Amino acid sequence: MADRRSRITPLRASQVYEAVLGLLREVGYDALTMEAVAARSRAGKATLYRQWGGKPQLVIAALRHRRPLRTEAIDTGTLRGDLHALVEQAGEDKLVHDARLHLGVGGAILDNTELRRSLRESVLEPVLADMAAMLRRAVRRGEVRADCPALDLVPRTLCSLIIARLLLSDEPMDVAEARRHLDGLLLPALGIHPLALAAP
Amino acid sequence: MADRRSRITPLRASQVYEAVLGLLREVGYDALTMEAVAARSRAGKATLYRQWGGKPQLVIAALRHRRPLRTEAIDTGTLRGDLHALVEQAGEDKLVHDARLHLGVGGAILDNTELRRSLRESVLEPVLADMAAMLRRAVRRGEVRADCPALDLVPRTLCSLIIARLLLSDEPMDVAEARRHLDGLLLPALGIHPLALAAP
Repeated sequence: MADRRSRITPLRASQVYEAVLGLLREVGYDALTMEAVAARSRAGKATLYRQWGGKPQLVIAALRHRRPLRTEAIDTGTLRGDLHALVEQAGEDKLVHDARLHLGVGGAILDNTELRRSLRESVLEPVLADMAAMLRRAVRRGEVRADCPALDLVPRTLCSLIIARLLLSDEPMDVAEARRHLDGLLLPALGIHPLALAAP
Repeated sequence: MADRRSRITPLRASQVYEAVLGLLREVGYDALTMEAVAARSRAGKATLYRQWGGKPQLVIAALRHRRPLRTEAIDTGTLRGDLHALVEQAGEDKLVHDARLHLGVGGAILDNTELRRSLRESVLEPVLADMAAMLRRAVRRGEVRADCPALDLVPRTLCSLIIARLLLSDEPMDVAEARRHLDGLLLPALGIHPLALAAP
């Protein structure tokens, strides 16, 4: 059957997903067309529809396929070390790409619950979970008080800063800027003051 | 001339702008059509094109027309009072509407510099400027040290939290949540601790 012969390989699927993620960052969800995905990945449009059904399903599959940051192995012995290592590992590319990805699907997620959930599960939640683990270790080490109200707020705040950055500034968030927010705002909110101030 | 007779009044223009802003929040920039604006504002599509030229120009005009938060008069005597008053004045509606507005245009601003600038000037910069004034007063009063590194970071961080909230959570930011971020994270980063912790 034609259907079986044209089933695409995992390698080809992964090329299609990369094309989708690239287009999401460049033109956004609404302007993304199956034609453009087909052209960029050198796949047939009919193949795309047969394999994934349509644009929403293909975008969701691409988001789920996306390789998350591997931050779960970070454990430097201090909270500051952990958070700086996380930002370092994300690197300029990831900080900018993820922000563009979120803005690219921004309009579409307003009324597409499944797309929103896919974006959150594939991009945000792994990093939020790893940051929560870093904070729990810092509490166990006595670096941060267990009742510190910022504990719950810091992981999402860091993600918000990265995501919203392209709306707030012409310069995307780079690693140096992310470090500045860690040392100047997020760690002080947790009671850690890396930028020692002279006595007042 | 037909052209002169059909020129629309400021009141009608303002109804058109409201329709545009409503649609941006509901469906986003890319899915917004001149047909939908015409239908919602009961204007003729030809009139819209004659008056504004096209969708990008109309959206930019609507963003510039948008009434900003009036926070410049807030001056309660304490930084915490000022920031809580700002969030209170924004209210649930504004916190949610502005976040939807940013996400709605998110994909489109990726490669539309003028749209991005309009959004920033009309929605963000007035509030950022008012927050900066609140912080300068707090420094003059001695509430915050002049060399506190969070001074530069707090205004954009509050805006980022509100904008990115709809991506990070199914619940939009409400006033109670915004207050929680002020007291639990932003004020502590500035050295002000409204949630007095018991001695460790």
